[in-house]
Amino acid sequence: MKAKIFVTLKKGVLDPQGKTIQKALGSLGFKNIDDVRAGKYFEVNIKNGAKKKAEAEVKKMCERLLANTVIEDYTFKIEK
Amino acid sequence: MKAKIFVTLKKGVLDPQGKTIQKALGSLGFKNIDDVRAGKYFEVNIKNGAKKKAEAEVKKMCERLLANTVIEDYTFKIEK
Repeated sequence: MKAKIFVTLKKGVLDPQGKTIQKALGSLGFKNIDDVRAGKYFEVNIKNGAKKKAEAEVKKMCERLLANTVIEDYTFKIEK
Repeated sequence: MKAKIFVTLKKGVLDPQGKTIQKALGSLGFKNIDDVRAGKYFEVNIKNGAKKKAEAEVKKMCERLLANTVIEDYTFKIEK
């Protein structure tokens, strides 16, 4: 089973990396960009097990290691 | 319009960051993990414009700045 995990900064948290990318895109000629936010993406392969159990495990992984829940949000999808 | 962009290392490219996360998860007690791959995630807000045009723009952004296409793959979704 494969979990796709997206970690993003919460709304209102400054994102200097995103701002830098936005400026770089602007200087490359992409002018019609409002905002860029940078985040992290993880693919975790989980050995067998039921989908419900995998969901609970991935939630724990995010809370304990993958996301800093003070400033970051996370979402994930479990796929076969 | 919002583009969600995922950049991942190509298959076969070593991913030390992923391996480190896998070990860290293992030491936290998550033992039934096969593999972890780390990637990047970007949200780009594009001002107005048609969806087709936005798709072409985002593809160019990925090729020119967001992904290193020698070692990375990218996928994206355009949302309203």
